[in-house]
Amino acid sequence: MSIRPLTLVPALFLASQALAADAPPRTPSAVVAQAPASAWQAVAPDTLLVMTVEGGRRIVIQLAPRFAPAHVANIRALAKAGWWDGKSVYRVQDNYVAQWGDATEKLPLPAGIAADIKPDYAQPLAAAGQAVIPLPYPDAYAPRTGFVDGWPVGMDDASIWLPHCYGMVGVARNLSPDAGTGAELYAVIGQAPRQLDRNIAVVGRVIEGISLLASLPRGSGELGFYTPSEKPLAIVSARMASDLPEAERPRFQVMDVTSQSFADYLRLRANRKDDFYDRPAGGVELCNAPVPVRIQP
Amino acid sequence: MSIRPLTLVPALFLASQALAADAPPRTPSAVVAQAPASAWQAVAPDTLLVMTVEGGRRIVIQLAPRFAPAHVANIRALAKAGWWDGKSVYRVQDNYVAQWGDATEKLPLPAGIAADIKPDYAQPLAAAGQAVIPLPYPDAYAPRTGFVDGWPVGMDDASIWLPHCYGMVGVARNLSPDAGTGAELYAVIGQAPRQLDRNIAVVGRVIEGISLLASLPRGSGELGFYTPSEKPLAIVSARMASDLPEAERPRFQVMDVTSQSFADYLRLRANRKDDFYDRPAGGVELCNAPVPVRIQP
Repeated sequence: MSIRPLTLVPALFLASQALAADAPPRTPSAVVAQAPASAWQAVAPDTLLVMTVEGGRRIVIQLAPRFAPAHVANIRALAKAGWWDGKSVYRVQDNYVAQWGDATEKLPLPAGIAADIKPDYAQPLAAAGQAVIPLPYPDAYAPRTGFVDGWPVGMDDASIWLPHCYGMVGVARNLSPDAGTGAELYAVIGQAPRQLDRNIAVVGRVIEGISLLASLPRGSGELGFYTPSEKPLAIVSARMASDLPEAERPRFQVMDVTSQSFADYLRLRANRKDDFYDRPAGGVELCNAPVPVRIQP
Repeated sequence: MSIRPLTLVPALFLASQALAADAPPRTPSAVVAQAPASAWQAVAPDTLLVMTVEGGRRIVIQLAPRFAPAHVANIRALAKAGWWDGKSVYRVQDNYVAQWGDATEKLPLPAGIAADIKPDYAQPLAAAGQAVIPLPYPDAYAPRTGFVDGWPVGMDDASIWLPHCYGMVGVARNLSPDAGTGAELYAVIGQAPRQLDRNIAVVGRVIEGISLLASLPRGSGELGFYTPSEKPLAIVSARMASDLPEAERPRFQVMDVTSQSFADYLRLRANRKDDFYDRPAGGVELCNAPVPVRIQP
């Protein structure tokens, strides 16, 4: 043991690697790698917010109009008006959120943007619109959890909502009853702050570039706001993919949560047992089973 | 709403701020701010691993000998031998871990370091040694959860273990049955990967500097290992505080989990209801109620 071969280094967490394609999948990653084309669903370009930040790097956010229709309508209009162009990521609080928009909060919103949105933090259960795949493990925050239409959800007997998982995007707001407009957004970059569920509008998730937001320097001001001596990350532009030329649109696919592949993925997320894992947990937390997303092959 | 005063910016998440000291605490932060001296316990210097990294920045790790005695014994001996001096943080995987030690894995361990540690991933329940404060909310990973001696714990009828919460430190290892030596360590920098609980040794937690580790650039290699073109973070030195001169020892306190303050903190973590929060969750996940830690006033 005093000398370990270099080739073993990646084995420290080798279990997350895909096995050979002809073996039955034993890990969540292997299930995703082997999932057939039929297990994937295209993401509609009118739900993709494409942000370009300094250095030409890209952050792509998938919006969820089903779960926050009024806020998503605002966000689409804000993107069309170029609201975020020239603005910045101005707050990064460790193990919490990265937040962007107009750091001064002084700029008037573009014409036609609703400023008095009613809280739409949860929807009637019927709004799910299709079968919910249940996650059969106990949860500290919601009576029931599961997945619908590619999204993780919390539920009670009457309503359904998006949870604050890593990478999920919400609408910053002031004290209640203000619900925010969507002009200031944040992404979760730490342990899921699910106490925010149903207290704030969740509008989507970062499907490309979350590591860019999560690795930004933390702000030293109160609540992680950057102080004048700290440099915000400049946003060059933010547009809906549907407003970009065809050739410039990013194309993503989300795993169909009703597919056998997703069932296999969930089962293995909850029960790791392979060359690395000896002891299956027998369960998995809602935010620890992110719905697989990939770039369209 | 078209013009919002600048002073409202911090109010986006104002609820996490302490209230005036003479008001009854309504938020977890206020409870912590108002906790009496009797609610705090000093951290013993022989459980504090003090790492200095390039730029003179500091990372302090509190070790938990009660939960991983063999690995902690190794870590103390490795620190005394100067094992980490001149080594690096060589792996950063988004929403997972930052890992440090000898990136080559070729260097022999110092004399006297045990290389064949048996897995000590959980301890007999009796090892808790004192009353466990239960967390009375359902958990996807453990039959029961709670807090003992300043630490979050998972439990079943026979055993007790440290969970992989944000900031917790574990021992990187190769495939089973290897349990690692403690020479290569990692800290959790994302959603708690609790499928690792009882599959790997958890030895402590970062109590200063986790935001430094969490904001490092992610490695572009497999599993977040840095590639040759990427720059690891250099470790200047790592010593137990008890091996430092008195004047150089950092001094920390952890909240007494049997105190009324901690009970109030947990209650409010699970039930946010104030100027910002309208809807209390009625529960909190084990890793979303970190035991408060502070620098000794």
